[in-house]
Amino acid sequence: MGYTDVDQLAINTIRILAADATFKSNSGHPGAPMGMAPVAHVLFNKIMNYNPKNSSWVNRDRFVLSNGHACMLQYALLHLCGYKLSMDDLKAFRSVDSKTPGHPEAHDTDGVEVTTGPLGQGFANAVGLAIAQAHAGGEFNKPGFELINNYTYCFLGDGCMMEGIASEAASIAGHLQLGNLIAIYDDNHISIDGDTNCAFTEDVALRFKSYGWHVETVEDGNNDLQAIEDAIKKCQAVKDKPSMIKLKTIIGFGSKLEGTHGVHGAPLKADDIKQLKTKFGFNPEESFVVPQQVYDIYNEKGAKGAALEKEWEQLVSKYAGSHKTEAADLKRRLAGELPEGWEKNLPVYSPSDSPVASRKLSEIVLQAIHDVVPELVGGSADLTGSNLTRWKEAVDFQPPATGLGDWSGRYIRYGVREHAMGAIMNGLAAYGTVIPYGGTFLNFVSYAAGAVRLSALSQVRAIWVATHDSIGLGEDGPTHQPIETLAHFRALPNCMVWRPADGNETSAAYYVALTSKHTPSIIALSRQNLPHLENSTLSNAIKGGYVVHEAEKADITIVSTGSEVGIAVDAVKYLKDNHNLTARVVSIPCFEVFDAQAKEYRLSVLPDGIPSLSVEVMSTMGWERYTHEQFGLNRFGASGAYKDVYKKFEFTPEGIAKRAVATVDFYKDVPNLRSPINRAFQQLI
Amino acid sequence: MGYTDVDQLAINTIRILAADATFKSNSGHPGAPMGMAPVAHVLFNKIMNYNPKNSSWVNRDRFVLSNGHACMLQYALLHLCGYKLSMDDLKAFRSVDSKTPGHPEAHDTDGVEVTTGPLGQGFANAVGLAIAQAHAGGEFNKPGFELINNYTYCFLGDGCMMEGIASEAASIAGHLQLGNLIAIYDDNHISIDGDTNCAFTEDVALRFKSYGWHVETVEDGNNDLQAIEDAIKKCQAVKDKPSMIKLKTIIGFGSKLEGTHGVHGAPLKADDIKQLKTKFGFNPEESFVVPQQVYDIYNEKGAKGAALEKEWEQLVSKYAGSHKTEAADLKRRLAGELPEGWEKNLPVYSPSDSPVASRKLSEIVLQAIHDVVPELVGGSADLTGSNLTRWKEAVDFQPPATGLGDWSGRYIRYGVREHAMGAIMNGLAAYGTVIPYGGTFLNFVSYAAGAVRLSALSQVRAIWVATHDSIGLGEDGPTHQPIETLAHFRALPNCMVWRPADGNETSAAYYVALTSKHTPSIIALSRQNLPHLENSTLSNAIKGGYVVHEAEKADITIVSTGSEVGIAVDAVKYLKDNHNLTARVVSIPCFEVFDAQAKEYRLSVLPDGIPSLSVEVMSTMGWERYTHEQFGLNRFGASGAYKDVYKKFEFTPEGIAKRAVATVDFYKDVPNLRSPINRAFQQLI
Repeated sequence: MGYTDVDQLAINTIRILAADATFKSNSGHPGAPMGMAPVAHVLFNKIMNYNPKNSSWVNRDRFVLSNGHACMLQYALLHLCGYKLSMDDLKAFRSVDSKTPGHPEAHDTDGVEVTTGPLGQGFANAVGLAIAQAHAGGEFNKPGFELINNYTYCFLGDGCMMEGIASEAASIAGHLQLGNLIAIYDDNHISIDGDTNCAFTEDVALRFKSYGWHVETVEDGNNDLQAIEDAIKKCQAVKDKPSMIKLKTIIGFGSKLEGTHGVHGAPLKADDIKQLKTKFGFNPEESFVVPQQVYDIYNEKGAKGAALEKEWEQLVSKYAGSHKTEAADLKRRLAGELPEGWEKNLPVYSPSDSPVASRKLSEIVLQAIHDVVPELVGGSADLTGSNLTRWKEAVDFQPPATGLGDWSGRYIRYGVREHAMGAIMNGLAAYGTVIPYGGTFLNFVSYAAGAVRLSALSQVRAIWVATHDSIGLGEDGPTHQPIETLAHFRALPNCMVWRPADGNETSAAYYVALTSKHTPSIIALSRQNLPHLENSTLSNAIKGGYVVHEAEKADITIVSTGSEVGIAVDAVKYLKDNHNLTARVVSIPCFEVFDAQAKEYRLSVLPDGIPSLSVEVMSTMGWERYTHEQFGLNRFGASGAYKDVYKKFEFTPEGIAKRAVATVDFYKDVPNLRSPINRAFQQLI
Repeated sequence: MGYTDVDQLAINTIRILAADATFKSNSGHPGAPMGMAPVAHVLFNKIMNYNPKNSSWVNRDRFVLSNGHACMLQYALLHLCGYKLSMDDLKAFRSVDSKTPGHPEAHDTDGVEVTTGPLGQGFANAVGLAIAQAHAGGEFNKPGFELINNYTYCFLGDGCMMEGIASEAASIAGHLQLGNLIAIYDDNHISIDGDTNCAFTEDVALRFKSYGWHVETVEDGNNDLQAIEDAIKKCQAVKDKPSMIKLKTIIGFGSKLEGTHGVHGAPLKADDIKQLKTKFGFNPEESFVVPQQVYDIYNEKGAKGAALEKEWEQLVSKYAGSHKTEAADLKRRLAGELPEGWEKNLPVYSPSDSPVASRKLSEIVLQAIHDVVPELVGGSADLTGSNLTRWKEAVDFQPPATGLGDWSGRYIRYGVREHAMGAIMNGLAAYGTVIPYGGTFLNFVSYAAGAVRLSALSQVRAIWVATHDSIGLGEDGPTHQPIETLAHFRALPNCMVWRPADGNETSAAYYVALTSKHTPSIIALSRQNLPHLENSTLSNAIKGGYVVHEAEKADITIVSTGSEVGIAVDAVKYLKDNHNLTARVVSIPCFEVFDAQAKEYRLSVLPDGIPSLSVEVMSTMGWERYTHEQFGLNRFGASGAYKDVYKKFEFTPEGIAKRAVATVDFYKDVPNLRSPINRAFQQLI
């Protein structure tokens, strides 16, 4: 295509903006932006298709900065491209409530696709975006209508490369033959501890070949723009493999400290910035300057992108004529609306129905709604038969060449890769056409803690089907029995942790999970059978907490979740028969949702004047917020048949009754006992 | 060496024991034990050096079953070898309180080196064991005295291979050229979702070559015992690389369902077991049978092992003559005793000392004690300059060939591999000669949650130096600011979470961490400077909680940790000046340790009759256990200078005072206000 001085000027502009912004904020990472400015310019100005005036165009090329600490690179580009990011926003880099935080945040900044920074996450998000593209293409493209064919580009550095999550994601991406995924590896030989030869000497190119990737190498990523472009185009042409470009660059290119870790995580010194500006032909006395020619070539590129989107819209109009249903479906999905009346398919139960394990109840939900909610795309981290995450008619999402499924398949075989699964779900959700869910044992959602945290922070609707939710899993033993897991994710802001007690609560969990567009859910499900409860209805359960068993003049409220609610109900009779005590029972399947109810309602569930006892077979942490006393398991579990294990730890009607009696006794002389729902002040939210 | 019918008999005995035990317990995994019985027999009967009568001999070869679900394989072998595991123990497989739980647990079962089951962990533990061996060799071996030269063997399956933690561990092991590490990969092409071709089609051998490993392949792992032995011996001979043997096996070999996932995670049917026994020449009516010839060859092997250890003891006696100091040091370390008086080197501070960031205080501790505690071996996940984990004179643990350090070096460059670092620390601790610590940002300890959980469960003394512990890290923003992290690990049983407020508390954290032989610690440390507090002394702080500022007739107790304690102290004056309220201040740097104090002491710190308010800049979850009201951050943080961020969220003397006033007001009419320390009943422990 031929590169000119204006291209070089643009590249140096980006480098200097990164130096200026980190200097002004006295914090941040100038090195990677300065090293990757050339490839970023080639990509954003010559290669990618996007319309900066509409950052939600579904067929735009996606860009993910997995080395998110290099965010000044992304912010500079978004500004040049014409996204809603002003020069003042760049000047506010890393200041409170700016659009330019220390790492890119998708919900804050126009044009940022996913929230990155925690290393390896962005790369796995990119795999998710590429899966979503291939899947949407498989579903919506028709002969003559290639509606969905965008590329996903991802920058990543040595840090991402070392993280296990990136290995998992690379392996599954290779298996899935994601031809539209192009990762660009900033091979600058520097990480925070110095030269990568101190800890990272593997052959990265060979490793990616072993995963089934196509690999290109660019020897001079600092200057050879044509080689960068050629490599990207070669990768675009490889349609049956994801591609990785090993791009050799010098970190902090142009700085007096270029090529050292001195430019990685600290601003350049004032005199260094001056020499940089002088060397690049900029006025050393000015900051935050973009030459008009640079704006011009980006404006031109933006206009091309707008035209491309317009063409695409015309194609979609034509498509709507011949493929009416698909067009309407795509439109609906992109608007984020569920199909009208879908919730009528949620199963409902009555207490006379047979007891069922909640993992099975979850399977029944998926079986019942998969047809009416076509955007539901799920999978499991190699525990399909245990998580029960697959509806009977499901087709696997697989490259047709494997003979195991096709691109429109809605069931993903994630392999034993929980962390990547979590981050891939974040990418899937970010694409816009899919609602992802993924299964594993509750205990192993912890392997994916880094990804779940970003689901919550970036406000993504991802759903974890987390079976084998307690010591009730039995013989697998303490290595597999969660104790701290619910407390962990309940403490995470904007994350719904559900632990349904029966059929209607399971349906409610799915209802709220699917209708909460900006919050991830973890649905903790039992391996053992559970009875259906008397007051459990969809409308009660979607409040997050409700009275399962009411009683006049109760001596105590027993509050529980999941498999223990049924035992608590049995304890009511035991308490009456053996201790002449009257107990009410409350189920709180989801703290986050219960907390959002009006105080009046919460007080009706957990009223003043009655002592309360929580019962849950895991850490009691967090239960003090709802109950006066707590019966739980603040130790590891045991390997054995589930009934033996429950008995060992006294999670039986007798065991509960023993603690209930102690609780009643302990509070009998306390006048005007307050419900823990009453607080002295409101928390900041 | 020549294999005989007795070897085959032994192998079939192992297979049948696995089938019998899983059948009897009606749960468990027969397939992998049956498939790996040949390699296990070759390894345990022909190759490995060990003395079953002393499972703590330091120079024994280590065996790790990373595919821990195959534990009946390990239990069968331990029984045959003559470890303390009887036939009755095998019969009690997977029953409550047995020595044969559903996955191997190191603290429960003689001969089990590390607790495995959560996939990928064991492999990374093995890397830790191999590092510890290379390190101990570097420290203690002298010309003519090769005291430490054992091998570490690890079995792993497809599940482990897919986990990111295994990739991280394999990469660092390759970099470190761990010649005594031999991993045997059960390439049986089956995982829970069926044939691995549905999700795992990478070229594993090529991947390991890319990491710098030596790779062997055994085509017939079911029958070709000589090929197995030859491959292992070739690997032993490669001294500058870890080795991986790709062993092709048939899962459930001998079963009617061999080669299918039907034998992976469920017992064989009764008729299948009968045909298996008949086919292998066993009586189909008998169960749990070991032919005497099989016991004989294992007894013979055990006797050889005992003789080897005796020889080794003689070498050590000789060594003690010429290398007295080293011999005494080795003996002391193996006894698990710290050097006498080491704690006198812990720094102490007074309130007049200048404020210092607690990450820096941690560095000062390491600098002060590294010399007197030579078993301290630390590192960082590529954040050395941020975690401040390296003392000035430290030598890197590196293969001498790299020119970057040597085998006796005590500083490990882990790379950006938090999860592997956690599991490697578990392996290091299990070896017996090392106390490991590792640094990363507190937020990224979550990446290693799976490993930390196993530190706690397997009662390992590993220490996390977790810096950048809150929104006080400032500009990096919410992607890096922990909110849920302390609650998560506080909810984990047997895990000490420390958040020291100043110099003496930091010294106390290290004191308790180093002297707690069976508990891991996470020490959360600030980036910002902290003042030294008035009543902070080593003897106060090692109680986990104490009164920092006492006051007569106090209106309120403010309870805090870390960087907020100093702000709470400032709030005392503000409350007096502006509201005429008297406040006391309590610091609880470690819940786990405070909980272990006598109730009388805890009540003296948090007395009845005074309302209390906790102050901590993260999730309030868990604080309800200690205080009546909680001021925290149940939302994500913000990117900005740390003072601006604290101000935004009102963590200032004024902000604290506002909540303190509300708290006093809220409880003013409550008679006989009870301290939350009072509980109706004791928790199970």
